[in-house]
Amino acid sequence: MPELPDKKAAFIDWYLAVVDAANLTDKRYGVKGMNVWTPYGFLARRHLDEVLVREIEVTGSSPVEFPALIPANEFAKEKEHIKGFDAQVYWVTKGGLSELDIPLVLRPTSETAMYPIFALWVRSHRDLPLNVYQIVNTFRYETKTTRPFLRVREIHFFEEHTCQVDEAAADRRVRSNLEAFGRMAKAFALPYVAVRRPDWDKFPGAAYSVAFDIPVGAGRTLQIGSVHHYRENFSGPYGIRYEDAEGAQRLVHQTTFGLSERLLGAIVAVHGDQKGAVLPSSVAPYEVVIVPIPSTGAGPGPETTASEIVERLRTHGRRVHLDAGDERPGAKYYRWELQGVPVRLEVGRREAAARTATAVDRLGRKQTVALGTLERDVDTFLQEFDRALYDRALAAFRDEFQVVRSLDELKAFSHVGILGWCGSEECGHAVETAVEGGLLGTPESELPLELDAPSACISCGSSTGVRWALAGRSL
Amino acid sequence: MPELPDKKAAFIDWYLAVVDAANLTDKRYGVKGMNVWTPYGFLARRHLDEVLVREIEVTGSSPVEFPALIPANEFAKEKEHIKGFDAQVYWVTKGGLSELDIPLVLRPTSETAMYPIFALWVRSHRDLPLNVYQIVNTFRYETKTTRPFLRVREIHFFEEHTCQVDEAAADRRVRSNLEAFGRMAKAFALPYVAVRRPDWDKFPGAAYSVAFDIPVGAGRTLQIGSVHHYRENFSGPYGIRYEDAEGAQRLVHQTTFGLSERLLGAIVAVHGDQKGAVLPSSVAPYEVVIVPIPSTGAGPGPETTASEIVERLRTHGRRVHLDAGDERPGAKYYRWELQGVPVRLEVGRREAAARTATAVDRLGRKQTVALGTLERDVDTFLQEFDRALYDRALAAFRDEFQVVRSLDELKAFSHVGILGWCGSEECGHAVETAVEGGLLGTPESELPLELDAPSACISCGSSTGVRWALAGRSL
Repeated sequence: MPELPDKKAAFIDWYLAVVDAANLTDKRYGVKGMNVWTPYGFLARRHLDEVLVREIEVTGSSPVEFPALIPANEFAKEKEHIKGFDAQVYWVTKGGLSELDIPLVLRPTSETAMYPIFALWVRSHRDLPLNVYQIVNTFRYETKTTRPFLRVREIHFFEEHTCQVDEAAADRRVRSNLEAFGRMAKAFALPYVAVRRPDWDKFPGAAYSVAFDIPVGAGRTLQIGSVHHYRENFSGPYGIRYEDAEGAQRLVHQTTFGLSERLLGAIVAVHGDQKGAVLPSSVAPYEVVIVPIPSTGAGPGPETTASEIVERLRTHGRRVHLDAGDERPGAKYYRWELQGVPVRLEVGRREAAARTATAVDRLGRKQTVALGTLERDVDTFLQEFDRALYDRALAAFRDEFQVVRSLDELKAFSHVGILGWCGSEECGHAVETAVEGGLLGTPESELPLELDAPSACISCGSSTGVRWALAGRSL
Repeated sequence: MPELPDKKAAFIDWYLAVVDAANLTDKRYGVKGMNVWTPYGFLARRHLDEVLVREIEVTGSSPVEFPALIPANEFAKEKEHIKGFDAQVYWVTKGGLSELDIPLVLRPTSETAMYPIFALWVRSHRDLPLNVYQIVNTFRYETKTTRPFLRVREIHFFEEHTCQVDEAAADRRVRSNLEAFGRMAKAFALPYVAVRRPDWDKFPGAAYSVAFDIPVGAGRTLQIGSVHHYRENFSGPYGIRYEDAEGAQRLVHQTTFGLSERLLGAIVAVHGDQKGAVLPSSVAPYEVVIVPIPSTGAGPGPETTASEIVERLRTHGRRVHLDAGDERPGAKYYRWELQGVPVRLEVGRREAAARTATAVDRLGRKQTVALGTLERDVDTFLQEFDRALYDRALAAFRDEFQVVRSLDELKAFSHVGILGWCGSEECGHAVETAVEGGLLGTPESELPLELDAPSACISCGSSTGVRWALAGRSL
């Protein structure tokens, strides 16, 4: 059993080895950057999606699905948007044996697929808000190095699109999305910062963008999603108008909220360790694996007790897997740790005789569980595991940030920098040059460190309009 | 409120009007044959998919997802298969601003995407059977007239692909799939026949094909899915080999099982009536709609009772919708009947005072429900609705078949014909010419009518090897 590369010293090598060894993906498919969702990876994705669906539907959003192919003429309607995506879309130019009259774009995102139809759906203020979302695959002709879940060419994607009566209502929808993401991230035990991007780094076509960033070590961050306020930038070109209560025609204000399979990548990246993946119970294909330890002797066999446990936990609604294979127990432990299963229940002859099982969680905590209180004990043990996982991630998260007071200091920086910024584009670019990465922007969520207001811009030294901003290198 | 076209006299017009009026789809998207899944249509699809997932996973099949794009060279490896699909695939030829070195096919089905990877996954007899399925969208450049759900260019698709040790094991998998489909169809209250297609009508690359056909009136049938035995036709070209227990290298035998959104079309086509769609409770976005009937007067208000009912049924796990809008009740009844909701609960002042509700199902049966036994009564009422729906469909199904004894008789036929066939291709084609449609093939499920064995082939008159066969026109 080969050792994993060191997570700290060789993060990307470690990451690639873990997603592979945990059997979350198969990247041997014939198109680079388009990977196979294995059964294990697919189940993790299914449970992850269930969290997204639950947390967005509770805010009054309805599922839809729009076609994957977008006619070239619709795609080109919003100028900034098309400029932002032109170099990275796949084009369908042939149907059967003949050229298509109008080429089709494989959706890189669905604004231009949805908004011509929104213009038909929205007629009156009574049709608003229109909050819909879809979970589909999107496609980008990625020219950078691809990485499973983090940068791929076929992307499993969540996108909410909404139409609101005015700018303030759209601002409120942005807030509601930020809160929804907070609940999702909590379910995945992922600490994050919500950051309002500088103007030069917002989504093509957006009035402003708030992104969710997760530090993954050495000052590098991973953007795992974003929320955008479009104002009337799309409703104008696509003609999404409604009649207000006074009978006047007005354009809607729009918002979007996007997340992708990067979330799964972030879960592996943040929680994983030298033993492999560590999955929160919300996402784990199996929350519990039961390993009977074969032995000979008198009394009830471990296999019988193991089967009883499986049966009872399944009835209780838990996702469990019985590993009755003929490998030795140590090999099984090793493999399920690699695959990140939250809890393992070991049943030997001694346990079977005593009507107990030994529970071991993926963080190494151990406990004896009595079969009499099996369901309740396993529930509690899993809850405690999730809490411990979050606490561990939160401690590491806080360690990733550091206040920085000068551009020079920023140059040799291996943290995510917290710095004063006057808001000017000039100073922003100065920061980006120094950090060899991005000015992530200004936090919209609480800062990970307790800080007073900043006194001066890190670049120009001005105290006028200065705010805390974050700087880091993208992974 | 415009009337629907007559289902019997103008079936297709009726069908198109119903899917539109029931708001199951929006076909105004900019690419013909690629339609929008509305929130209502999407929820119906979600519940339909849940049935497929449940019934296939119980047979030991695991979910996966393979990429949507297939390199041209992999696509071309199995000769019959590529011949069958060449004229109806979409080609991606450009990525960003440049031509792709190897063009990519948007999957029309996933044999050629999966099988190169299966060759890596299958090594030993211990890796078998490999049973995996995916629910994805497939794409066909359809040149015939498109119809929502029935013939579209982006198709919501279920496809199981399996590898088995030998032909007999693959035959058993085919049987298991036929049984799984039986359970699915029962959940949708859909009677059907499973028919082994004649050799000239099997799936491109298959050794044999069994299709599921549903009659939809006047001798027309709808193929809503199929199961195929591939033998070694694909494992040869794709090199899917395993080492058997004796150490010899052998090719796997493969099977597939395909279903599509046509199932939803069939549900509308079979169950719908002059009032609109009728959805079985397994699929209905809302199983129950609650309509409070506004009134003034003393005592508890209908709105309070309606809210209590919604709350309780939701807690009980039922999908319910409270229609508290300001339309008059009659308009609401009309709309929910159009949309096919199984059960409506009406609550007026009289009901509120008596702690009851009036339940009316989509087939017109009426019953008073006491709030004291609400959950149990609604469960029973829904079960009875599903049973009545199936009984009605079964009676209509049986009426669609008729035994036919001569080719002349077949010419003016408005039923699905049951006829004797000797099995020869010549006689098969003679039947097809006479019926102006297809020889569907020989039944693999029970015949809808009780019949003795056939005595002679309808075409050549021979009694040698004669079997019952079915003939009909495809919709």
